[in-house]
Amino acid sequence: MRERKLVIDTLPDPTPGAGQVLVKTLACGICGSDLHMLEHADRMIAMGARSGQSGAGMDLSRDLVMGHEFCAEILDFGPDTARSLAPGTRVCSMPIAFGPRGFGAVGYSNEYPGGYGERMVLNEILLLPVPNGLDTDRAALTEPMAVGLHAVAKACLAGGEVPIVIGCGPVGLAVVACLRLAGAGPIIAADFSPVRRKMAEHLGADVVVDPAESTPYASWERIAVPEGVDLQNPFAAMLAKDRIRPCVVFECVGVPGLIQQIFQGAPRDARVVVAGVCMESDRIEPFLGIQKELSVQFALGYSPEEFAATLQHIACGRLDVDPLITGKIGVDGVPGAFEELRRPERHAKILVEPWR
Amino acid sequence: MRERKLVIDTLPDPTPGAGQVLVKTLACGICGSDLHMLEHADRMIAMGARSGQSGAGMDLSRDLVMGHEFCAEILDFGPDTARSLAPGTRVCSMPIAFGPRGFGAVGYSNEYPGGYGERMVLNEILLLPVPNGLDTDRAALTEPMAVGLHAVAKACLAGGEVPIVIGCGPVGLAVVACLRLAGAGPIIAADFSPVRRKMAEHLGADVVVDPAESTPYASWERIAVPEGVDLQNPFAAMLAKDRIRPCVVFECVGVPGLIQQIFQGAPRDARVVVAGVCMESDRIEPFLGIQKELSVQFALGYSPEEFAATLQHIACGRLDVDPLITGKIGVDGVPGAFEELRRPERHAKILVEPWR
Repeated sequence: MRERKLVIDTLPDPTPGAGQVLVKTLACGICGSDLHMLEHADRMIAMGARSGQSGAGMDLSRDLVMGHEFCAEILDFGPDTARSLAPGTRVCSMPIAFGPRGFGAVGYSNEYPGGYGERMVLNEILLLPVPNGLDTDRAALTEPMAVGLHAVAKACLAGGEVPIVIGCGPVGLAVVACLRLAGAGPIIAADFSPVRRKMAEHLGADVVVDPAESTPYASWERIAVPEGVDLQNPFAAMLAKDRIRPCVVFECVGVPGLIQQIFQGAPRDARVVVAGVCMESDRIEPFLGIQKELSVQFALGYSPEEFAATLQHIACGRLDVDPLITGKIGVDGVPGAFEELRRPERHAKILVEPWR
Repeated sequence: MRERKLVIDTLPDPTPGAGQVLVKTLACGICGSDLHMLEHADRMIAMGARSGQSGAGMDLSRDLVMGHEFCAEILDFGPDTARSLAPGTRVCSMPIAFGPRGFGAVGYSNEYPGGYGERMVLNEILLLPVPNGLDTDRAALTEPMAVGLHAVAKACLAGGEVPIVIGCGPVGLAVVACLRLAGAGPIIAADFSPVRRKMAEHLGADVVVDPAESTPYASWERIAVPEGVDLQNPFAAMLAKDRIRPCVVFECVGVPGLIQQIFQGAPRDARVVVAGVCMESDRIEPFLGIQKELSVQFALGYSPEEFAATLQHIACGRLDVDPLITGKIGVDGVPGAFEELRRPERHAKILVEPWR
């Protein structure tokens, strides 16, 4: 990203500092946040600063190499490294790095180029060798799947919930797969796109809903509410409370109006996990939330433990990520892929192979 | 309330139906929701309907007697009553009633006149005799204090939290008292009014903040974050996470902008309980919530168990409500009291004694 545009150019290789390794990018997914970044870089930086993140400082007048969902291969070691993994080892890492100049987000910093480029610098201590002979493409899905694992963890499922996933882009699909992994269900997934609804089914959705024709809340009611209980009658609903399966809604779209839409549609006592990343100002009617006693948990990212666990889940076949990979391109294909990803009809995750 | 105005008039006594009793109102608090109702009746009714409450139907072309925070005395019994409490017994009740024509909210329905009037009809099964010789004024505070008890219960305190109460009107003060009862603290309370800050201190706030001079989040940080931990540094904050005492913010104001203000000020991982009842449309920036992984629990009302427990807490002296009672009036004083309560400087809770 140069002057807020995608540019293909040759830059000097980054140099690993103390505790760091130089890696070759093998595959790197394109994330919706990267599309956001290209359009709303100033807003993202300003928002980061306002929420108290000193590491959010990016200099837009300098080049920035995006890409934070990667699998890579160790090439060389910087000073003060343990070198317990051999060169040639395939690795994943959380997309953060740190050194004497402080902390940075790989792919969202001027210091740490991301995986759309051929070379990256990562911290040795964060490297996770790709286990169990897992192939590179699937390993590169660790990061977006960890987002789903974290969102599901934030829902604090106690058993018995009937989850609704709103939006079946990469985040929604990761949530569907991780709900399935957690044993939750039946899982209801909603998306306007028939392609994405099909993907959701492949990943574990039991009921898919086209919001143009029905609402996921009607599906929830059919599954979760015993025959004969009228939710419109506050008394009847109160008496039947223990027999109604809780509604947990995952917001995986991230555009203005979605939270309010959930406030309008969700049943009393629903829990909402906001995993979609909305960068705009938004409008809600708190009174709807109040009358229904909704709860809203915002979720972002994952813990180091969740990231490592996700890689293991994929490697052991507990998380199926194949349906998510819908395209592979070289670095010259990135600008076109950004355009394609604006239309949800064809793609979920496009992998960049910058070595091509 | 007649044609959206407060009117003092004489109406026929209500008649107790099957399972109901006729009571004499002894004291009834004026609630902020009643002020809302007078100004925004149409919006309240429309919102109730949109959130799926069939019982929200009120006919504004008919008279409506408000008042839902009452202590009353049993006068007479309708048919099919057990009559286990003698006439003359002082009682409290959740302000709901039901009969052959369905369910209604006492004080918010045309069917069930509320406690600003001299007579009400209540359901025998919901009556709680005032225990332990508790005086009438304090017993009348059961309803608003139950709101606080419920809001605190909704916070699911696990121990160690440092709570912040935003707004020290009756709801905020009830939350402060119930936090104290729950053993939580130090309790930080914020209000622009020095009178209300003083009341908060009487009810159990350990730190009071004038938002014109400081922020409650700075107070939280001084108490909750170990010396030397820099919250601006995401790594340092992550490593110190288990040593930082959680922040739970109670929103007890209920006007637009408050939730966004909390999104801006609250620290990472804060839990927000919205107990203030905002009837307007509101604006938030979800990205602030996302980056901080905030959670927001909306709260309203209380369960029958919480209502009964609150009366016991007051009767046994575990909940001190005296500082809340700032005025007593007859029914002719209600219009003036509504005016006075718009200015937060003098009053918390004004009790109506319609028998005066």
